[in-house]
Amino acid sequence: MAERPAHLAHLEHLGDATKFSPQIHALIPKCDLLENFSPAEVRLLAHFMDVYQAPAGAEIIREGEGGDFMLMLIEGKVEVLKRDRWNVPQMIAVVEAGKTLGEMSMIDGEARFASCAAIEPTVFVVLTRVKLQELITKEPRLASKILMKLVYMLSQRLRQTSAKLVNYLEK
Amino acid sequence: MAERPAHLAHLEHLGDATKFSPQIHALIPKCDLLENFSPAEVRLLAHFMDVYQAPAGAEIIREGEGGDFMLMLIEGKVEVLKRDRWNVPQMIAVVEAGKTLGEMSMIDGEARFASCAAIEPTVFVVLTRVKLQELITKEPRLASKILMKLVYMLSQRLRQTSAKLVNYLEK
Repeated sequence: MAERPAHLAHLEHLGDATKFSPQIHALIPKCDLLENFSPAEVRLLAHFMDVYQAPAGAEIIREGEGGDFMLMLIEGKVEVLKRDRWNVPQMIAVVEAGKTLGEMSMIDGEARFASCAAIEPTVFVVLTRVKLQELITKEPRLASKILMKLVYMLSQRLRQTSAKLVNYLEK
Repeated sequence: MAERPAHLAHLEHLGDATKFSPQIHALIPKCDLLENFSPAEVRLLAHFMDVYQAPAGAEIIREGEGGDFMLMLIEGKVEVLKRDRWNVPQMIAVVEAGKTLGEMSMIDGEARFASCAAIEPTVFVVLTRVKLQELITKEPRLASKILMKLVYMLSQRLRQTSAKLVNYLEK
């Protein structure tokens, strides 16, 4: 489909996420985004998402590029890398199944803050900005639920980052 | 009404925001939250918000307290103060009409990151977490629009804060 993100064209597309919805639902205890979602809600949401597979070593998101999707890992592990002032990628996190990545660029379309690369064979579901808009139009109640979670997650991260910044400023 | 935030009990309550909706709509060019909202959408949203008035010097939000509302200034000016490591309040921003404050605690209920006090006579509209939930139930499409804006605003602030933190860490 024309809507698939160009930045994922090098990875294998496994179709829409519907058939993965039991697996997605099973990850809820590890997933802030889908906390309290019923199996029916996960299934409904899955219609708006696609599944991709990446071999170990494959880049999934590249720091500095624009982006229009977020993803949730359902199998495998991903490392998050940010370039330092000498332009050398430094690992800043390792992310496991149930975790989400790329929310900020999905929403604002701006440059990716960091790169993400599979460190083992990885399967993930993708929600694009276009599909989120479609979800808002067709399923506004479910969209509100997702958006509340995103606001909550970003709010928590902003608190953590602001607290770290305040600590450094006071040193 | 029982739903009014206890933390605002010392301020004058001017009723629901419906009669202020033309004034709120006029502030849209200065207001990230309501960008692209039609007069009808502002009017609808106003039903879920209340208006308060604060004299110069009055505290509106206190750092460290829990919170369950956000606000948008419609008249006046507010200073934002954060305590330093010696517990002395330091002014970190001055906020004018059209700007919003308190989004994080409205969403996550955690401690206010900073205090806000009126520096001139100030009028503001308040959206509580309870009213946002009511908006999601009764007007999910409008709620999605507001939530998309909140996600966008928090994403932008997280980018700015993360960029500052990275700068400090690299020094």
